[in-house]
Amino acid sequence: MRYLTAGESHGKAITAILEGIPANLKISKEDIDRDLARRQGGYGRGGRMKIETDQVNILSGIRGGKTLGSPITLQIENNDWENWQDVMAAFGNSGYDQEEITIKKETKIKHVKPKVTKPRPGHADLAGSLKYNQEDIRNILERASARETAMRVAVGAIAKTFLRNFGIEFAGHVLQVGRVALDKELDIDLDEIRERSEDSPLRCVDKEVTQQMIEEIDQCKTEGNSLGGIFEIRTTALPIGLGSHVQWDRKLDARLTAALMSIQAIKGVEVGLGFEVGKRWGSKVHDEIFYEDRFYRKSNNAGGIEGGMSNGEPLVLRAAMKPIPTLYKPLSSIDLESKEEFKASVERSDVTAVPAASVVGEAVVAIELAKVFLEKFGGDSIEEIRINYENYLTMVRER
Amino acid sequence: MRYLTAGESHGKAITAILEGIPANLKISKEDIDRDLARRQGGYGRGGRMKIETDQVNILSGIRGGKTLGSPITLQIENNDWENWQDVMAAFGNSGYDQEEITIKKETKIKHVKPKVTKPRPGHADLAGSLKYNQEDIRNILERASARETAMRVAVGAIAKTFLRNFGIEFAGHVLQVGRVALDKELDIDLDEIRERSEDSPLRCVDKEVTQQMIEEIDQCKTEGNSLGGIFEIRTTALPIGLGSHVQWDRKLDARLTAALMSIQAIKGVEVGLGFEVGKRWGSKVHDEIFYEDRFYRKSNNAGGIEGGMSNGEPLVLRAAMKPIPTLYKPLSSIDLESKEEFKASVERSDVTAVPAASVVGEAVVAIELAKVFLEKFGGDSIEEIRINYENYLTMVRER
Amino acid sequence: MRYLTAGESHGKAITAILEGIPANLKISKEDIDRDLARRQGGYGRGGRMKIETDQVNILSGIRGGKTLGSPITLQIENNDWENWQDVMAAFGNSGYDQEEITIKKETKIKHVKPKVTKPRPGHADLAGSLKYNQEDIRNILERASARETAMRVAVGAIAKTFLRNFGIEFAGHVLQVGRVALDKELDIDLDEIRERSEDSPLRCVDKEVTQQMIEEIDQCKTEGNSLGGIFEIRTTALPIGLGSHVQWDRKLDARLTAALMSIQAIKGVEVGLGFEVGKRWGSKVHDEIFYEDRFYRKSNNAGGIEGGMSNGEPLVLRAAMKPIPTLYKPLSSIDLESKEEFKASVERSDVTAVPAASVVGEAVVAIELAKVFLEKFGGDSIEEIRINYENYLTMVRER
Amino acid sequence: MRYLTAGESHGKAITAILEGIPANLKISKEDIDRDLARRQGGYGRGGRMKIETDQVNILSGIRGGKTLGSPITLQIENNDWENWQDVMAAFGNSGYDQEEITIKKETKIKHVKPKVTKPRPGHADLAGSLKYNQEDIRNILERASARETAMRVAVGAIAKTFLRNFGIEFAGHVLQVGRVALDKELDIDLDEIRERSEDSPLRCVDKEVTQQMIEEIDQCKTEGNSLGGIFEIRTTALPIGLGSHVQWDRKLDARLTAALMSIQAIKGVEVGLGFEVGKRWGSKVHDEIFYEDRFYRKSNNAGGIEGGMSNGEPLVLRAAMKPIPTLYKPLSSIDLESKEEFKASVERSDVTAVPAASVVGEAVVAIELAKVFLEKFGGDSIEEIRINYENYLTMVRER
Repeated sequence: MRYLTAGESHGKAITAILEGIPANLKISKEDIDRDLARRQGGYGRGGRMKIETDQVNILSGIRGGKTLGSPITLQIENNDWENWQDVMAAFGNSGYDQEEITIKKETKIKHVKPKVTKPRPGHADLAGSLKYNQEDIRNILERASARETAMRVAVGAIAKTFLRNFGIEFAGHVLQVGRVALDKELDIDLDEIRERSEDSPLRCVDKEVTQQMIEEIDQCKTEGNSLGGIFEIRTTALPIGLGSHVQWDRKLDARLTAALMSIQAIKGVEVGLGFEVGKRWGSKVHDEIFYEDRFYRKSNNAGGIEGGMSNGEPLVLRAAMKPIPTLYKPLSSIDLESKEEFKASVERSDVTAVPAASVVGEAVVAIELAKVFLEKFGGDSIEEIRINYENYLTMVRER
Repeated sequence: MRYLTAGESHGKAITAILEGIPANLKISKEDIDRDLARRQGGYGRGGRMKIETDQVNILSGIRGGKTLGSPITLQIENNDWENWQDVMAAFGNSGYDQEEITIKKETKIKHVKPKVTKPRPGHADLAGSLKYNQEDIRNILERASARETAMRVAVGAIAKTFLRNFGIEFAGHVLQVGRVALDKELDIDLDEIRERSEDSPLRCVDKEVTQQMIEEIDQCKTEGNSLGGIFEIRTTALPIGLGSHVQWDRKLDARLTAALMSIQAIKGVEVGLGFEVGKRWGSKVHDEIFYEDRFYRKSNNAGGIEGGMSNGEPLVLRAAMKPIPTLYKPLSSIDLESKEEFKASVERSDVTAVPAASVVGEAVVAIELAKVFLEKFGGDSIEEIRINYENYLTMVRER
Repeated sequence: MRYLTAGESHGKAITAILEGIPANLKISKEDIDRDLARRQGGYGRGGRMKIETDQVNILSGIRGGKTLGSPITLQIENNDWENWQDVMAAFGNSGYDQEEITIKKETKIKHVKPKVTKPRPGHADLAGSLKYNQEDIRNILERASARETAMRVAVGAIAKTFLRNFGIEFAGHVLQVGRVALDKELDIDLDEIRERSEDSPLRCVDKEVTQQMIEEIDQCKTEGNSLGGIFEIRTTALPIGLGSHVQWDRKLDARLTAALMSIQAIKGVEVGLGFEVGKRWGSKVHDEIFYEDRFYRKSNNAGGIEGGMSNGEPLVLRAAMKPIPTLYKPLSSIDLESKEEFKASVERSDVTAVPAASVVGEAVVAIELAKVFLEKFGGDSIEEIRINYENYLTMVRER
Repeated sequence: MRYLTAGESHGKAITAILEGIPANLKISKEDIDRDLARRQGGYGRGGRMKIETDQVNILSGIRGGKTLGSPITLQIENNDWENWQDVMAAFGNSGYDQEEITIKKETKIKHVKPKVTKPRPGHADLAGSLKYNQEDIRNILERASARETAMRVAVGAIAKTFLRNFGIEFAGHVLQVGRVALDKELDIDLDEIRERSEDSPLRCVDKEVTQQMIEEIDQCKTEGNSLGGIFEIRTTALPIGLGSHVQWDRKLDARLTAALMSIQAIKGVEVGLGFEVGKRWGSKVHDEIFYEDRFYRKSNNAGGIEGGMSNGEPLVLRAAMKPIPTLYKPLSSIDLESKEEFKASVERSDVTAVPAASVVGEAVVAIELAKVFLEKFGGDSIEEIRINYENYLTMVRER
């Protein structure tokens, strides 16, 4: 299984091609669109999210609601394309050499200078423009935008559908926004995490903490500042033995970490206890092994992974997201052309995107898990994989 | 550039094949052996480290001290092979079905029961044995062992040699061991970090903190417990534009943190501020951009990476290592065959391996950086790459 | 550089995502559409080609006529989608369980039974249906169709545009159709091959042979049979040293062979003299080396590749294509459901597709060459690559 | 499953690391050594073959005769290393800058000038030296040598052992040497092909043709010339559905022919009828489908592959090998340093290596088949894979 995403934030459409999903998997467009909507929600988002209301188009690989085994093309059109087509056109004069052009957006007239020369701190702007030898930073920022994650959420929704056939479910929820953190141990089950986080505008399982987060966001917004946070991805118990210890690049934790770290703005990833393992002594870290019909643990400090493999317990992963770097309260930077100092401009107005990131987190973890699942169980149709899977579970149970 | 490692901990030898290193790179066997020795050092190691004194053998890819462009075979023989050859023989009766055999090790006679059926919590033992359908856990633990990292250190030493040609240097040092942490801001340069950490038996830049770590280890050892910790990898300033924002799996941070997470026992990774970004407001996170002959920053909260690319500043990466799971103070577990509870056995006696892990960290970061460096600059000989590199720096400088 | 194609033959659209093309490459939509038209041409094609008139849509990765370095989305819509949307719909009742539905196609009313259960010899039908556990063979044949090659031609047009910047040009032409073969030595240059083959309805450089091929096709058509043939791909002289001898999967000939063999219906591939090398003695095979300002050859029996690397001479590759397996004169087969014998049905009416295949051949060779070119020269913008390229040529020249 | 080979022809050892072979596969060192011996045999080989008598050493991944699932290290030592260690030493003065040194080889004293500056036509010498910026061509020719194929034969022997568990067997045999070809249809079964070809010093199934080949070789040797030829690889019937039609790089024919083309000196590859498909009309090419308990064919013109997938019939692949380019009757070339013309020197004295190449052909086809087999059936132990495999066969049979 592999996939590529493509598309600029204000281009005509963003697209993904996903290959290797087995045949005969029932797909619901509603499931994909629901995850797209979940990604667009969350308290603390600014204007653009409202006009997006993403809808997936399936252009290949699915027929009559079932996968064919052939590559799946997923596409989301840009609802605002009409206003951007001059600026972003693939061919023709894209206004590139004009001093400025006028485009209509969000029912107001705005003046847009097509060439962006002011790199924003905390973005791909500077490094990307120099690497790819671009004079117009728009040629970088359009692709570096977190808009791209919509495509990963769509791909992830298919991966989740696949894994649901094997009883694997996901919950992404928010643990911290700025200075407000959920600091208690989570002793509720996955269903309850999902239910409560879905009910919270911050995807936080605790109502009181949610309210504190809202206040943190409101205060931050007043000051023209932005907020990061921490989210967590949990799953139901995984089958034992996904990933492998035999080579560095096959370790499940390494692969899941790369997936989470590849989400825009993530600066840290933890498995299970995470950085806490640096402090605790060994006897308080390792999860003792018990047996009753099957091997199990009473604790899950390992977060479901030992020796680079799933150990039969639920996954517990966390990621830290930095504050959105585009601030109303601007940062100092240097114009690429003039080399003069300026205060970095604002392109959008979100205060925080941590709730959205937790939905993206679910997606990328699901995608990577689906990959290792298919590597372990092989098979080209959902029926074949189901038998292989049951066969393995029986082998393990009979040990 | 790609590489594979192979070898069991007590097998005849561990081996790596490294392909894609350009031709005409001068290699020093001493440099490799020095890193191997650095990995074997550190306060808190038990018996086995002393008999290892690893030495690399180069079996291909290097001639007269220079690389040929062909695959490099690196091999480290097991000095204790004589005592293990019956147990670990590739062919013949390896004592597998004998009740027990007698082997000589460390000048004492030990009785070794060849079949291991007791999975240790915190190890690959349980998941690996079920996944690979093994009755003898030795068939898993031998490969899952951190002994494998010796090979990555050897490969990393070549990657570091390559990058040194372009002024890129590395420092791995220890920030925390158990409850003892270096909590001050590091305001010393890379050379000083290297010098001080080399002088410390814990690879810690602060003498006083080193002493506290020693005490933590001594106390922990007395209690038959073990310790994890946190280490940091820093580099000199990287060229801007390594990695890419255009696709999730090409992001530099995703690749480097996967490499770190793939080291045995790592449970958390961070870039720059790391998890701290979840708390701070945006105006205290992003690194403003300045210019004086070149673009530069006065802070490095991003840890050298923005938008999945190096931004021209030094890399700053951290990883959290869990305590060694093999304790004198044993953990509860279940015998694979009898399904009876037992107290997990001790195979080795280290209290902590964090200093060693920091050396492995340098290696895996260097390997991954060498890969992205070669992807960016192409070239098949060190001479060709050098011109390509200078050419790019000039292009960037003239912007 | 990597790419994926997606799309069913009668689906809404076929799509490709192409990643790794450097920034600032000027792209002409006309160039892509011209290659798409060349693929649709050729004497001996039946009805469908006429309604296709493929046009590429660029949905990402190109702005104002230049590449951005980000993934390029290429899409070709199915002009006949209106007639197929019920049968091929991703969701909803796609007529899958109806006995039959009526669709309009090619201005005539046809009755189409949506479920195909009759596997055609020579196609993916049987193997695909069993592998992917499909009852409706349409779920296989739609993707296995050579319609997919339109996407590779579009991707190839961009690869060719890239390589043209470095003086590398391509010519695909037809050497044989059925029993009619061009048997003389080709002693004309690449420009003339291109010119003459473009003028021939069979993409054959010889007018007389073209006429004989037309007669072969006409006769074959009368008898309800079909024809294969042989085409050849040539290039201008390549830079020396693309590909590598150091590992089996980096050899240029192996990679180009895979690319050509992956075209639907190809059963043989040759480099240079090809199978003739089995007969000739060594002294009549190897190309002696001469020097005059640069190393060169007076013969090119090696077809431009020695030791898995380009040797500085033009590429010469040939591929053999089997006759289209769908015959008016039907073949015996077995119904998947009833297990009863039937005579394999006709879905389309081409007699031969060898001229089209030669255009696809150009594309896949160009794609693979662009990949190895980028591996050798690195770089993220066309400007950077150009300097790296010139630098290497200078190094080679000064030897 | 993946593997890398390493090692120079006259280096200390050649090595391979093979990863992804499932656990619990019984391996026989004798099987590997037998294939190594088969590769060394064949009429028409010169001196060096006699001193080689290759023996594999297994350094990891196998214990007590069974695979562990961990990477397998295979190594073959150079029996002549004593005579080459000065010239090929990894470190120290390798005689590189001496005018000449004296080494002992084959019981005669030879004078070896360590720096090779004379590129031989038909070899990697020229392209490799320029690409990798080498002054001493030995730095290229040592790795480009067909000596490397010994490692692929060893890896292939393990792949064959794996596939034998599923009833898949291989036969490589020689169809043509120079002007002497076996021109009749092969109507004997695989066992008989194997038996007869093993009995022939040219691995040819026909005694009379073998005798003619010997005469061709003897005559050629007298004239100081060399010979190529054609070999064929056949298998027993494969399970239906290996490989895939859904993406170009997953097609079984593309992958198998790339593997064959990657063997040193191969210039053409064919599947089934191969180039003959260009001439025959469609009704004489496609294999009609029949059914009796299972789907089967009465002809196998497709060579076992349709639509990029195995179709349930035996594989039939052919490859054309060029004559050994090192001739007693030398070819014209140019000295790299002086740019003066010379007559290309002789390093070894084989007349033909086609029988050896047919053994290498078996190996590379087996390796690639094992890969696609594991992709289809998944699994980490031979027991698990066996159940998955049987399950699939049952699914197919019950259709």
